[in-house]
Amino acid sequence: MNVNFQNWVKNRQLQIESYLENRLPAENCAPERLHEAMRYVVLGGGKRIRPLLSFAAGELNGADEARVIVVAAAVELIHAYSLVHDDLPCMDDDTLRRGKPTCHIQYDEPTALLVGDSLQSLAFQLMAEFYLTDNPKKQLEMIKQLAQAAGSRGMAGGQAIDLASVGKILTLPELEFMHIHKTGALIRAAVMLAAHCGDELSDDQLAHLDHFAKCIGLAFQVVDDVLDAEATTAALGKTAGKDAEQNKPTYVSILGVKQARELAKELKHDAYEALDRLGIATNRLLQVTDFIVQREF
Amino acid sequence: MNVNFQNWVKNRQLQIESYLENRLPAENCAPERLHEAMRYVVLGGGKRIRPLLSFAAGELNGADEARVIVVAAAVELIHAYSLVHDDLPCMDDDTLRRGKPTCHIQYDEPTALLVGDSLQSLAFQLMAEFYLTDNPKKQLEMIKQLAQAAGSRGMAGGQAIDLASVGKILTLPELEFMHIHKTGALIRAAVMLAAHCGDELSDDQLAHLDHFAKCIGLAFQVVDDVLDAEATTAALGKTAGKDAEQNKPTYVSILGVKQARELAKELKHDAYEALDRLGIATNRLLQVTDFIVQREF
Repeated sequence: MNVNFQNWVKNRQLQIESYLENRLPAENCAPERLHEAMRYVVLGGGKRIRPLLSFAAGELNGADEARVIVVAAAVELIHAYSLVHDDLPCMDDDTLRRGKPTCHIQYDEPTALLVGDSLQSLAFQLMAEFYLTDNPKKQLEMIKQLAQAAGSRGMAGGQAIDLASVGKILTLPELEFMHIHKTGALIRAAVMLAAHCGDELSDDQLAHLDHFAKCIGLAFQVVDDVLDAEATTAALGKTAGKDAEQNKPTYVSILGVKQARELAKELKHDAYEALDRLGIATNRLLQVTDFIVQREF
Repeated sequence: MNVNFQNWVKNRQLQIESYLENRLPAENCAPERLHEAMRYVVLGGGKRIRPLLSFAAGELNGADEARVIVVAAAVELIHAYSLVHDDLPCMDDDTLRRGKPTCHIQYDEPTALLVGDSLQSLAFQLMAEFYLTDNPKKQLEMIKQLAQAAGSRGMAGGQAIDLASVGKILTLPELEFMHIHKTGALIRAAVMLAAHCGDELSDDQLAHLDHFAKCIGLAFQVVDDVLDAEATTAALGKTAGKDAEQNKPTYVSILGVKQARELAKELKHDAYEALDRLGIATNRLLQVTDFIVQREF
């Protein structure tokens, strides 16, 4: 990773952190404990993969960064809410996240439930509060897209499919179907919503960009499965080996580590090709792609 | 209650039921179990108090019913999600709602969690998907209002205050503060968002209408507390006497039943006055007010 890109990543991470810090209700604003817990789970950690994708996608077509950051924050809030709810005892029952106790451990279960609920509301508040394009009808369409990506036919639906598949042997297409919803929908939203903040792209360009986002979302998940199977808890900042322990189907359980790594490379290749077809400068998105898919590899 | 109004109530209840039925994802659409559970909690029951308030408020200023029903449905979906999450074991741990097993009993806890999450997303999807006014900027403002009413400084925040107050002795103003958030915010949204679908009201009129909604929201809660203290489980369709059992401060625990009934009447009187100040025909809202506050009285 070259120094310029390293700096870009670092600066964007600081930018989104600072933006989220300003948008989250203050800790001394009632109800204090809820707001403290919301800040606990959103601030001070995370690679901010989705915001980085938004920033990079916004560079494709000259999107105003002041607009892209709103989209990036909304997507990150939806992501943060999903982690808090996924970690609850009735779901993955996890105690460690980003090297810190999960929300229901640090606070309590009811607070974690309400933190997730409130972060989702806040995401939609941001999407409606600030102008994201010069065309408010297009902005309504963007809000609808985020709602669909988050809802029962997007991320939450993917989570339901995930739950239903515990202990089952899935085929590769079934596993892919789950991840296209569970993690893919929000990653696509991060990319597409940012692009909607900039100059109009053609329908073909939007289709290529969406295909890119789909590939990168799947690649990201394959990498995640490999990391979960191989890494230690300390390096991961969350409990390692949970998937195998919970008898969850993963790319590693279906393909083995070696083939799962190969699949990640193939998906990355597909993502490159989709970017190539856009016909515009995509340097930043290429860099972010490498950053996401290689990670600890 | 006169026959015409009875028919109006019945027709509006059928209308919102049928609208929600069409907007909720079909049970045979994947993930099937999640969608079945979403339909289970939203359809087939409830007095639809908030939609009735929306329909009545929309009559104030000639709002198109095809628009008001979208707002009514979105508010009802937020309300339904909050009930599902409130009933969870880590919250109120309730097993009966509208005479049926609660969602986590009928299905399971993870499903109930995802049902609530998905209903919230769907509410915002509806708000963005259909044109609610001729001015899309105003519609963005309406989405922001709903998000605020639902979030940490609205309904979810009220729920957090409620949790923090279990076992404590609250003053009347503290109890009021909690309910203004917990139930009041969404009732105000039901009224105000519907009014925003119609002809412009003056700032004064909007302020009076908002005051009306605030009073009716509190009155509704006082009545609810009295009903919980007095009614049987069978008549209520949900577990009666839970508040006392859970040592929750209520209007009845602070004031006693008799004074709580008096307070409900006072609040209703304040609501009447606020309507009077609007200076337009408010017959329908008056009827709905009586319907809500008297209920089984």
